[in-house]
Amino acid sequence: MPTAERMASRRKRSPKIANQWLRQILRLLYRRRSLSRIGIVETTGLNAASASHALRYLLDCGVLLRSADRCRLTGRHREAFTVNAEAGHFVALDLEGDRLRFGLTNLLGDIRCRWEECLGLGQPFAAEKVVEGIGRVTRDLDPTQLGRVLAVGVSYPGLLDAEGRLSAVNLGWTKVPLLAALKQAFPWPVFLERDKETCIHAENWLGAAHDCRNALFLIAEGGIGMGILEGGEHLLGARGFSGEIGHCKFIPGAEDLCNCGQKGCLEAIASSPNIVRQYAERTGAASAELRFVDVLERARGGDAIALAVFERAGRAIGSALSTAISLFDPEIVILGGDLILAEDIVLPIIWDQIRLLTRPRSLEVVQVVVSRLGLDIRLKGAASLAFRNVLEAPELMQRLCAPARDAAPALDRRPRPRAMKER
Amino acid sequence: MPTAERMASRRKRSPKIANQWLRQILRLLYRRRSLSRIGIVETTGLNAASASHALRYLLDCGVLLRSADRCRLTGRHREAFTVNAEAGHFVALDLEGDRLRFGLTNLLGDIRCRWEECLGLGQPFAAEKVVEGIGRVTRDLDPTQLGRVLAVGVSYPGLLDAEGRLSAVNLGWTKVPLLAALKQAFPWPVFLERDKETCIHAENWLGAAHDCRNALFLIAEGGIGMGILEGGEHLLGARGFSGEIGHCKFIPGAEDLCNCGQKGCLEAIASSPNIVRQYAERTGAASAELRFVDVLERARGGDAIALAVFERAGRAIGSALSTAISLFDPEIVILGGDLILAEDIVLPIIWDQIRLLTRPRSLEVVQVVVSRLGLDIRLKGAASLAFRNVLEAPELMQRLCAPARDAAPALDRRPRPRAMKER
Repeated sequence: MPTAERMASRRKRSPKIANQWLRQILRLLYRRRSLSRIGIVETTGLNAASASHALRYLLDCGVLLRSADRCRLTGRHREAFTVNAEAGHFVALDLEGDRLRFGLTNLLGDIRCRWEECLGLGQPFAAEKVVEGIGRVTRDLDPTQLGRVLAVGVSYPGLLDAEGRLSAVNLGWTKVPLLAALKQAFPWPVFLERDKETCIHAENWLGAAHDCRNALFLIAEGGIGMGILEGGEHLLGARGFSGEIGHCKFIPGAEDLCNCGQKGCLEAIASSPNIVRQYAERTGAASAELRFVDVLERARGGDAIALAVFERAGRAIGSALSTAISLFDPEIVILGGDLILAEDIVLPIIWDQIRLLTRPRSLEVVQVVVSRLGLDIRLKGAASLAFRNVLEAPELMQRLCAPARDAAPALDRRPRPRAMKER
Repeated sequence: MPTAERMASRRKRSPKIANQWLRQILRLLYRRRSLSRIGIVETTGLNAASASHALRYLLDCGVLLRSADRCRLTGRHREAFTVNAEAGHFVALDLEGDRLRFGLTNLLGDIRCRWEECLGLGQPFAAEKVVEGIGRVTRDLDPTQLGRVLAVGVSYPGLLDAEGRLSAVNLGWTKVPLLAALKQAFPWPVFLERDKETCIHAENWLGAAHDCRNALFLIAEGGIGMGILEGGEHLLGARGFSGEIGHCKFIPGAEDLCNCGQKGCLEAIASSPNIVRQYAERTGAASAELRFVDVLERARGGDAIALAVFERAGRAIGSALSTAISLFDPEIVILGGDLILAEDIVLPIIWDQIRLLTRPRSLEVVQVVVSRLGLDIRLKGAASLAFRNVLEAPELMQRLCAPARDAAPALDRRPRPRAMKER
């Protein structure tokens, strides 16, 4: 019997597979990657028969794969289940600021195809650029592969209004009609999230905060912000303005002027452009000719002024993190952005300042580490966003498990290599 | 037919009243106080028949009362439902520090009987004192009334270990076996919560944060801490150490020594004993003879030193709140503790500092207000804690709705005056 028919007949024979069971199992495997049947039953709380029905159904439609786990007690291999990474694709966007990144990812956030475009300073950001970029990462897909694209995930800086228009004061973007352009150009549902949140979710899914329920992610690059994971969910605040640590003041009386119009903001002291600015001001160098990495190289070479600028930035960030640790009581604090290029220089200063200012009890278990997800962090976070939303939307779950897609090559229960442009 | 029998027969005739429906309705009315049948159906998402069954059952066992709402559109009165405040009692404890407060409350947190005991500075805190205090607020109850006591709610400062032993460095309490003593002395289940959390829940239930999902509560008295409400739930952190704002530093280089052993903590600058200490240090007065209200009176009388001390404390608190507002994006910030006695003097300073330091965008909608729940705030919060836990525990829900209790006078669907000691 052809697979699609077999699937339809199975669904008819066992009409009791509730969407809720499929969702619970997939949500669990999204987090835990691979789990035995017993592990799935125990963790989801489903009864064994329901779990078996649902597992068989997910195997049949190619969304899960069987793998083998070695049992810790007996040392023997036992049956385990894992998500078939290639059972679906997401389009991931990272609107970083001076460059736009586009990715086609599989279900587990591996980037299968990538496109990047430099915006250049002051160049206007038009929604068409985003449409064009998505076109580039999807244009080589054949219809079957295109059929497997489930959703678009977007990581954005700045503010999105209720109509889906994007503004970012730092970047000179004003009410770019992002959502409308995407909805008009593509058939896929679009999910958008602040970059702070995509970063912390990427770390929670694939990075240093894996298995953590309370974590902080400090991004320090053009701007400074904080993603907050609390009890396994990100913390948004009443209007989605949480984590604005870049505009808190930790050096009273500092005269550094921030883009927001205030003085002494953390961002005006420790963001990468402001590290360059301070170095240029103190040395009289032309700041237009200096890059962050130049100042960093000089600091590594022992340049006292460069070192002093990093010292000041590191102290300010350490003060900020000390306060955040006392307020949130996280398991882990992860640093990301340009700042981590200077890890060797600033991390000891940051740690030193945190230890100086924080009550020892608050520091007993907390780790401060540097992100290892690299430049792709927000693309992976955008894929995580799309995946989390697919699991919540019945019609997308149905598309993920659709019998019609069973005819496609990737759904024969083994991941296959793809003929796609990789960079 | 006697009521108990009628109840039992109703439960037999309609065996489909799920605990979940009762819980959903009670949880809703715990928050919203009074709601029409349509409002209950719409908000809980129950179908009309299930909601009707459950409402009738709750009316029959006296947990709900009918009230009359005036319809906003037609101006006519329509049937509404409200919790019968007297259908159950809680024992509420507030282990404030230098005094212990005990209350017997009804379901809605009204305090029916109160007992207070001064611990006095340096006097040891023994668990027996708590047992004695609870005895005092419950000793005049007759057996029927005693049968209506559902649980004990405790608001505690400091740290509770896994064995339920309480330690508070500030107060000199070390591993007081609180939980064990309560469990041994009384038949009721005991629920315990940090005072930060009981305060924010009291405000969320009965105070300024009613209907808010994101709120902050700053207590400034002997110590300083912050209760955080995020998305309708309190934020605990990984180990329950969140909200330690009292040990953050907002005046770099400040030499004020804190109880925690560090220097320059907010608590060492703005807590009431430290306001007294600073005034005494600057004037050479004997701090043992001064109380917080004395310094306050002098400030009101124009004493420049007292005003300067309050100015410093207010600035430090304003800086702390500015940072917290930027990080949490709350709808409201509520101030509580001794500090609010000095509302007229410090509130303008705090607001001024918040406005000076915070990005205007973060302040667009946030209110900063003073708690109006008075000295009872933690007793009411402890009652809220007990109520929230009763709704989660099937056996306690059963006790709340038990037909046997129907024979008791208070369950004839009208609240009645009680013959209880009031203070």
